[in-house]
Amino acid sequence: MEEIISLDALIELIDKKQVTKLRELFETSEIIDIAEVCNEIDDISKLLFIFKTVKSEYTAELFTYLNEDTQAKLINLFSDKQLTELITNSYTDDIVDFLEDMPANLVTRVLKASPKEERSDINKLLNYKDDTAGSIMTTEYVEISEDLTVKEALAQIKKIGQDAETISSTFVIDKKRNLVGVLYLEQLVLSDEDTPIKDIMNEDFLTTNVHDDQEVVADIFKRYDRTVLPVLNNENRLIGIITIDDVIDVMEKETSEDIAIQAGMQPLEDEYLKTGVFTLAKKRIVWLLFLMVSATFTSMIISKFENYLSAAAVLSAFIPMFMDTGGNSGGQTTSLITRGLATKEVTTKDYGKVIWKEFRVALITGLVVATFNFLWIFLELKIGLVSNQGANHPEDWQVAGLVALTLFSTIIIAKCLGASLPMFAKKIKLDPALMSGPIVTTLVDATSLLIYFLLCTQIFKLVQV
Amino acid sequence: MEEIISLDALIELIDKKQVTKLRELFETSEIIDIAEVCNEIDDISKLLFIFKTVKSEYTAELFTYLNEDTQAKLINLFSDKQLTELITNSYTDDIVDFLEDMPANLVTRVLKASPKEERSDINKLLNYKDDTAGSIMTTEYVEISEDLTVKEALAQIKKIGQDAETISSTFVIDKKRNLVGVLYLEQLVLSDEDTPIKDIMNEDFLTTNVHDDQEVVADIFKRYDRTVLPVLNNENRLIGIITIDDVIDVMEKETSEDIAIQAGMQPLEDEYLKTGVFTLAKKRIVWLLFLMVSATFTSMIISKFENYLSAAAVLSAFIPMFMDTGGNSGGQTTSLITRGLATKEVTTKDYGKVIWKEFRVALITGLVVATFNFLWIFLELKIGLVSNQGANHPEDWQVAGLVALTLFSTIIIAKCLGASLPMFAKKIKLDPALMSGPIVTTLVDATSLLIYFLLCTQIFKLVQV
Repeated sequence: MEEIISLDALIELIDKKQVTKLRELFETSEIIDIAEVCNEIDDISKLLFIFKTVKSEYTAELFTYLNEDTQAKLINLFSDKQLTELITNSYTDDIVDFLEDMPANLVTRVLKASPKEERSDINKLLNYKDDTAGSIMTTEYVEISEDLTVKEALAQIKKIGQDAETISSTFVIDKKRNLVGVLYLEQLVLSDEDTPIKDIMNEDFLTTNVHDDQEVVADIFKRYDRTVLPVLNNENRLIGIITIDDVIDVMEKETSEDIAIQAGMQPLEDEYLKTGVFTLAKKRIVWLLFLMVSATFTSMIISKFENYLSAAAVLSAFIPMFMDTGGNSGGQTTSLITRGLATKEVTTKDYGKVIWKEFRVALITGLVVATFNFLWIFLELKIGLVSNQGANHPEDWQVAGLVALTLFSTIIIAKCLGASLPMFAKKIKLDPALMSGPIVTTLVDATSLLIYFLLCTQIFKLVQV
Repeated sequence: MEEIISLDALIELIDKKQVTKLRELFETSEIIDIAEVCNEIDDISKLLFIFKTVKSEYTAELFTYLNEDTQAKLINLFSDKQLTELITNSYTDDIVDFLEDMPANLVTRVLKASPKEERSDINKLLNYKDDTAGSIMTTEYVEISEDLTVKEALAQIKKIGQDAETISSTFVIDKKRNLVGVLYLEQLVLSDEDTPIKDIMNEDFLTTNVHDDQEVVADIFKRYDRTVLPVLNNENRLIGIITIDDVIDVMEKETSEDIAIQAGMQPLEDEYLKTGVFTLAKKRIVWLLFLMVSATFTSMIISKFENYLSAAAVLSAFIPMFMDTGGNSGGQTTSLITRGLATKEVTTKDYGKVIWKEFRVALITGLVVATFNFLWIFLELKIGLVSNQGANHPEDWQVAGLVALTLFSTIIIAKCLGASLPMFAKKIKLDPALMSGPIVTTLVDATSLLIYFLLCTQIFKLVQV
């Protein structure tokens, strides 16, 4: 996407107080494009000028896209009237979104400036736990009673729909205020005026509980191709709706979290560039330490066989190679299966199918890679890229055979472990992404080292010490 | 999500020919839930019974969710009349979706059974290249001319909107059939009947070209929170629309591809469980071979210093440990930055910021991990988990210091490389995901081995040979 206006051009409009052109810009551009430029303006008074000049229906949207710091500074500088205008023109869920990251004194200011009804909505939404349906829902929806006709319903929507975040779905309630149907605007428009809405509303609608995890909500949207979902409280009363734009953000965030966990990090709460260096370091150190300590097994195994390494030093030259290949082939399977579990392409019920498939894939992959590996290592030794010397050194073909056979076993084990670990995690209700590439690598490393030395000393009896 | 009906219950309904109950099931359930159960039915005649019994508005949707094999079998068994009914009740883009994977003879059958107009639409859509806007758009939208009032527009939508995939947006064209505005149903319903639609339509609308990559389309939906996007041909005429449900599928697929590439695989075209063993193996072997050959550098480095390893065997025990830690810490940064580039949180313009940030993160991480590592290795050696013997073996604290210092340098290099490689790839217009964890690992492995041996032999002069 190209920037729609340059920073310099925008600053010029502001400095020269070209009010008409500035207003025009907001009417003809996408607000998010302007917001990106505004986020580069350091002088807060320039931004304040925009908020004073441009219609608040535009600036309210602009505000939601600004950096937290800028938002906080602006709230400090806004008059009470400006603040009230901003809140009236914003959707409640957007207000709650930025309030969540604000210091308490600013939250108090915003709440004070809010109209009474809005204030109680904001307070309610602020109290829902992060990552629940409640935290992403909005209270601005249209509900109508069940005994209306299409014509009456449309008239009512026209009357009360102006402030709603969407009227594409309206929610039909009975006399006890229970949700009894969902009415799509499309259906209303396509039906005859006199039809009772009871006849056309959908009585088998999906809902979500306000305390449900937002990932559950995102799954419903994806699976059932929804754009709006009603949210019920524990008494099954309708208390809000979730719209698809907020769900897309959730989907993106959840995927980023999965990716982070799988790379051996704790996920970030904020965008990368906005996250401090210490937080970034903290998120990574835990896993690095854990994995480093786990690698002790590899040290112990090597140490146990160090006499053999001293006797035939060539043996140590290939340790990184087969360890890397093991880690890589295990990592391939782990990411594929973890992603499959996340998109629901694969479920734990498919375990048998998956393992059987990975086993065959491993056989083919292992055979091809190990054959190539045998030839490659034989070549390396023959042309002296890697030297094979010493008092009673093994033959070149013996070394190549040993490494290739280890590699083959390693690939089989890596693929089977790589498929099993995420599915096992899912089965015991852990996040499959926790069984990350690094963990698989660590396990495979230790196993393949053991195989290497056992093949070398027990089966091939290549080295006598 | 719970299954809504069990396989056994569904088969019983079919075997006992409980027509009413079967129809009821389709009316009260989400079709995708039933489809999942249907996909487990092997006996195609049972499925055929469903298609004969249940209203085609439901079975048309059911059909889109079935496996390719089942779809092909069903088309073979359908009468011409059934086929025509299926096509009439399906959206054109859904028909094209399943035709894309069908053998030619079945495509011909379907096209023959299609009503004339539908046939030409299907043919047109089939001709767009995979992964373009054209391949995911539908031709079933509503266009109206610009000189109508709200009342007239609503009447027209009522008349021609029944077959459209969505009427939430209608598209306003001038006399030359150029797209001049987009009209949201919500606006129509909320406006007065006599308002000319020219006054309320959006003239600054976003569009996409039919040949645009679907990833570009997905980005527009995400960035601008759209649910529908008009598609133009090279002459800027409106030829189709894209709806958000198809875009969500694209987003999921693109993310899966990124994840696959980053784990060192070529992405799959199909779902994991539907992909054959040979295809799966082929997608992985190329990278494994490439990475294995790259690992030759590590072998060469170790080989070059093998005299030192023979003299002090303890030195080889820690090679896997610092290589793993290097790979892991590089992988952390690479995934974070690659994901950031994919979600546009980070751009190549931020290179300076990112490197400076990662350098500082690496300093902190390196310091903490290396300090802990020093103590840990010292302990391992003292309590004999790893033995440090031999004629002129170095002191325990010397070994621990050497490993810790190598680890520190490795983490710094890994983080800087891990941040630079994806951004460099992006800069030269390659897919950043190509600079995958495995590639970073291979590079870091070689570098850290070199550092290890140089520190050991040149600086510390721990071992004399």
